[in-house]
Amino acid sequence: MATSSAIEALKEALKALPGVGPKNAQRMAFHLMERNREGARAIADALNDALERVTTCQRCNTFCESQVCDICLSVKRDQQLLCVVETPADLQALEQVGAYQGLYFVLMGKLSPLEGIGPEKLAFKRLNTLVAEHDIREVVIATNITAEGEATADYTQQVLAPYDIKITRLARGVPVGGELEYMDQRTLAAAFKDRRALGE
Amino acid sequence: MATSSAIEALKEALKALPGVGPKNAQRMAFHLMERNREGARAIADALNDALERVTTCQRCNTFCESQVCDICLSVKRDQQLLCVVETPADLQALEQVGAYQGLYFVLMGKLSPLEGIGPEKLAFKRLNTLVAEHDIREVVIATNITAEGEATADYTQQVLAPYDIKITRLARGVPVGGELEYMDQRTLAAAFKDRRALGE
Repeated sequence: MATSSAIEALKEALKALPGVGPKNAQRMAFHLMERNREGARAIADALNDALERVTTCQRCNTFCESQVCDICLSVKRDQQLLCVVETPADLQALEQVGAYQGLYFVLMGKLSPLEGIGPEKLAFKRLNTLVAEHDIREVVIATNITAEGEATADYTQQVLAPYDIKITRLARGVPVGGELEYMDQRTLAAAFKDRRALGE
Repeated sequence: MATSSAIEALKEALKALPGVGPKNAQRMAFHLMERNREGARAIADALNDALERVTTCQRCNTFCESQVCDICLSVKRDQQLLCVVETPADLQALEQVGAYQGLYFVLMGKLSPLEGIGPEKLAFKRLNTLVAEHDIREVVIATNITAEGEATADYTQQVLAPYDIKITRLARGVPVGGELEYMDQRTLAAAFKDRRALGE
């Protein structure tokens, strides 16, 4: 083969990106080397910079460049309200809505027996400590509405069971703008089951 | 926002990858920081290594870690036969077939007025010099069978016109295994136009 071993190594390394297979990795490697060496340099620098600077918040476990993140430090947020999410991306999605004014806790993943991710690989111990040491009124479990997210929610509920805390879960149902005709059966079943009285 | 500026910078940098938009860049950045810091380090190292080591062959212009690539150095290849391709990826695809035993020349791109890529941005000058200085019998133009590839082929033909060299182009037609029912009209039209006499 005529290609260089450095490019082969780069193709191999790029496969660590989620959703990138061999074909795509090759396309990326060739593209960067052919036409965007500056971009390649920028990616390498940004990766090294993030590896060096990004750590996790000691309180809520989200990504952070200091010991405690801005949300946890904010005095404007409701300190007695805690929202448990799977990932920093989920936290960010909820923050963008702006409808929630409590604090967060990030599990950094979801239970997934198929991928070998059991409770010990998520931050349940730290969640336990957090809840034990702070005066928390309500925990909103906001894991994804998927099989793995639901299992993670169930486990979270077990962890919180010993404490006298109200536990809630994000509502399931037809998304706003959703048409019943195109909803899957499980969504419709959940929407029926969780139906609310008008005027509530 | 709660996310760190280093992660924001990483998301921005990852958009240099082909086919990667803001959503995908965020997913990649979070995935690497959350679950694969080793992979992130490997990508950064591989990028820097490739940037340092990968250059282009002085003869054929493909990627190479020395002055002249293995194919150009090979004494087994037909030195009088030259195949012009758009990119190193195309060269690699042709090499994997193993049906061609001549040398290559890589233009490093294709003419694309929409992207501002004119003849001066491709390696036509070097192709001219190569053909002028070497005894070449035939040039096979193997650019892609797309509008841009065809325009690049036309220009290549003009560059080679002053020389007494046989110029050929890869055959267009129905791919092997292709069913006429599912072929597009232009492919069928080309297959008709370039039909060959049986027994040839």
